[in-house]
Amino acid sequence: MAEKITPRNVDYSQWYIDIVLKAKLADYSPVKGCMVIRPRGFAIWERIQAEMDRRFKETGHENAYFPLLIPMSFLKKEAEHVEGFAPELAVVTHGGGEELEEPYCIRPTSETIIWAMYKNWIQSWRDLPLLYNQWCNVLRWEKRTRLFLRTTEFLWQEGHTAHETEAEAVEETLRMLEVYRSTIEEHLCIPVLAGLKSDAEKFAGAVRTYSIEAMMQDKKALQAGTSHFLGQNFAKAFDVQFQTRDGKLDHVWATSWGTSTRLVGAVIMTHSDDKGLVLPPSLSPEEVVIVPIFKNDNKAAVFACADGIKGALKSSGRRVTLDTDDQNSPGWKFAEWEMRGVPLRIELGPRDMEAGNVVMVRRDTSEKITVRAGEVPAKASELLAAIQANLLARARAYRDANTRDIADYEGMKAFFGPAGEEAAGIGEAKGGYARALWCGSRECEAMLKAETKATLRCMPLDDQEAVHGSCALCGQTARHRAIFARSY
Amino acid sequence: MAEKITPRNVDYSQWYIDIVLKAKLADYSPVKGCMVIRPRGFAIWERIQAEMDRRFKETGHENAYFPLLIPMSFLKKEAEHVEGFAPELAVVTHGGGEELEEPYCIRPTSETIIWAMYKNWIQSWRDLPLLYNQWCNVLRWEKRTRLFLRTTEFLWQEGHTAHETEAEAVEETLRMLEVYRSTIEEHLCIPVLAGLKSDAEKFAGAVRTYSIEAMMQDKKALQAGTSHFLGQNFAKAFDVQFQTRDGKLDHVWATSWGTSTRLVGAVIMTHSDDKGLVLPPSLSPEEVVIVPIFKNDNKAAVFACADGIKGALKSSGRRVTLDTDDQNSPGWKFAEWEMRGVPLRIELGPRDMEAGNVVMVRRDTSEKITVRAGEVPAKASELLAAIQANLLARARAYRDANTRDIADYEGMKAFFGPAGEEAAGIGEAKGGYARALWCGSRECEAMLKAETKATLRCMPLDDQEAVHGSCALCGQTARHRAIFARSY
Repeated sequence: MAEKITPRNVDYSQWYIDIVLKAKLADYSPVKGCMVIRPRGFAIWERIQAEMDRRFKETGHENAYFPLLIPMSFLKKEAEHVEGFAPELAVVTHGGGEELEEPYCIRPTSETIIWAMYKNWIQSWRDLPLLYNQWCNVLRWEKRTRLFLRTTEFLWQEGHTAHETEAEAVEETLRMLEVYRSTIEEHLCIPVLAGLKSDAEKFAGAVRTYSIEAMMQDKKALQAGTSHFLGQNFAKAFDVQFQTRDGKLDHVWATSWGTSTRLVGAVIMTHSDDKGLVLPPSLSPEEVVIVPIFKNDNKAAVFACADGIKGALKSSGRRVTLDTDDQNSPGWKFAEWEMRGVPLRIELGPRDMEAGNVVMVRRDTSEKITVRAGEVPAKASELLAAIQANLLARARAYRDANTRDIADYEGMKAFFGPAGEEAAGIGEAKGGYARALWCGSRECEAMLKAETKATLRCMPLDDQEAVHGSCALCGQTARHRAIFARSY
Repeated sequence: MAEKITPRNVDYSQWYIDIVLKAKLADYSPVKGCMVIRPRGFAIWERIQAEMDRRFKETGHENAYFPLLIPMSFLKKEAEHVEGFAPELAVVTHGGGEELEEPYCIRPTSETIIWAMYKNWIQSWRDLPLLYNQWCNVLRWEKRTRLFLRTTEFLWQEGHTAHETEAEAVEETLRMLEVYRSTIEEHLCIPVLAGLKSDAEKFAGAVRTYSIEAMMQDKKALQAGTSHFLGQNFAKAFDVQFQTRDGKLDHVWATSWGTSTRLVGAVIMTHSDDKGLVLPPSLSPEEVVIVPIFKNDNKAAVFACADGIKGALKSSGRRVTLDTDDQNSPGWKFAEWEMRGVPLRIELGPRDMEAGNVVMVRRDTSEKITVRAGEVPAKASELLAAIQANLLARARAYRDANTRDIADYEGMKAFFGPAGEEAAGIGEAKGGYARALWCGSRECEAMLKAETKATLRCMPLDDQEAVHGSCALCGQTARHRAIFARSY
């Protein structure tokens, strides 16, 4: 058997770390707060990236690349922005053997350097919209880090768009939120709520921030992507004006939106189990692994048969690998491939072979299905689609089962329990999503956070009807319906 | 007419800058020595990247991601390596509002951080080979920069592999050199020489460096990629040992290899002309542009016909765009699309339309071909293949015409002319590739460089037979045949 991992019921955090390290997705690095993404982890990111990029291009966006370094003075041009990011900056003070006249920071996000360039490129309404995206690394100095979920350096994409009108910019903000929602649900099998952030939680420099929020197995929320309506804030800070259709001058309207390698962590945490990683077929480096079961006297025959099945699967477009290891037992190999999260395993032994059968095993349900060898490609295709659908449905059912309507503050406190007393394992974890009315005041958010660590995750866009009644926190007149949860 | 660019015969450097800026491939940034890659430039890089990445994976390599920051002490572990890179480093001294105990540099290349990790991952011959590649940004502080060709920050890929034996590592070094050669010739249409670098020109930390060298239109060489055999240097510096098949301990053998966004500059400089950018169809964001010629009374009919042709081209798998601009004259638009380097232009006016014809214009030769509307997809496919082949053949003919066998130092001096007297335009540019015998001494290289600025570009792998005679520089016994040239 492969080395065991900590069960979720004992310590969910350690279970997560065990999977990341033992499935060789990432590793700690000698650089404080930074990790190394190993090939199996990077392959998941590449598959997320490819699908996102396809959808960005489909919606008219182009990729570009802006400098890693940003003059410190640029960051200061937008007051809220610098206040939000200053504590997290890495600063370059020396270059080429000399002290720099003006220090640079490593980009924590690129609004400022991009809007400094947009000033050169935008003169008239004919130059608009600019729909640019950038795939890159960013740095935010973090005190407490967690592999994939929060690291000082991370990989992400940041979209930065410029528009003629407020309405167009708002439309773009919501369009990209929907691109995130659909990609993450369909491709990553993670159900998310799309909604508006409160002012307390919005991006430094934004007018409004929208996010998509996922629920992990310990019932905590994870912010999986954000889309910001920036108004004219950055256009004003960098003096980007354009000639309008009726010959006037106006500041440009802006959006920005981002998702990151954090999504890899969300995938792991949402789907995996005590045997290891569980991956949606859409993201797995291999969709199918074939494990031959053999002894010395039948090895050649079993492998010949396995090779034939591999060929048939490849021809049908499947990503498939054949385990040729002859050092370990079948049981060890089964456990190892379960640890790595391959969605479908094919077991092939001499008795199956003689009967013209193989055994297929689903990673998500452990169900074993005996299939005629000739029907493997068709059955694999059917089962992979079923796994993809099941992972989303299962995660959605879990989230819904852990969402409660809460009417008052006593209910909130009972639902979350006090701050600092969270269980390590998921079995005894309290909380989840508290769906509740809210008056809109920052004080209510602060009070709940202090007492329970729960924060306002978002005000779901599709759940703002019939907001009548009183705030679940202070009892004043409610203005919104919000989701409260502890979060990563 | 679109704004004109400086002709190559007047000032080749300015011509290059004009194209980069006016075709909107890149722009200067407010960060010293760093550029912004604009969408049309980035689209070329993405197409180079996709093809390279496909070939890396085909040869068994996997992508990973290592930290941007490297502890300064790591760089010092390999003596030649730190000596080579120390003058070019950007140094991070502050993070999260505090001065760091140990400063980090921003990676100029990643051997050191990667070998620090390989130490954790390699114990036995069973862990080998590791065939990893990374797509990322690197920083090398540069005093004199040039868009795409030499910038402080650039994008690149760096392969880092670990092997059991010297022979395997050497084989890998040459395999990747060949992947570079074939990709750059077939996909970028740039003919290159693949050869060994002299010790004076090798990578800091390598045992041997191989490069591929291209010739630009001003007859200067441009190093388009390098592949290094690192021996056991980094394994020893980072103490990476493994248990061999016969139970002993040995240091791991290594290679590294890289290509960068510099290739975009090489493509521009190799193929373009006084009308602007010329791109191989394989790299152009659009393969075909349709420019309708219309007046108010026939606009709808012409556009309907143009739309039909666009649809037919799309269905046949072509990347095609329709110019819908109604502000500028057809002549202006033709010049604009020539500036942008689109390989094939289709002109469609009312008279053509009535006759059932279109006019197709090749960007590389300006040849005009009248084609029946129904035959456009087939003809486009044929012409694009012809353009791809012609660009490589044309560049190869130019290089061969500017390669001379040189026997002695007087010949060298006459071929290159004195340092500091190079012509600005290409018409009067001296030099090219001097193919000459060389004794192997560093002094000979230094002498030639001081007097003519020409350096030893490489010793071509396929041109080392019948090395008999005397060094073209000092007259001593020759040991190699080498290519000397001025370079970027």
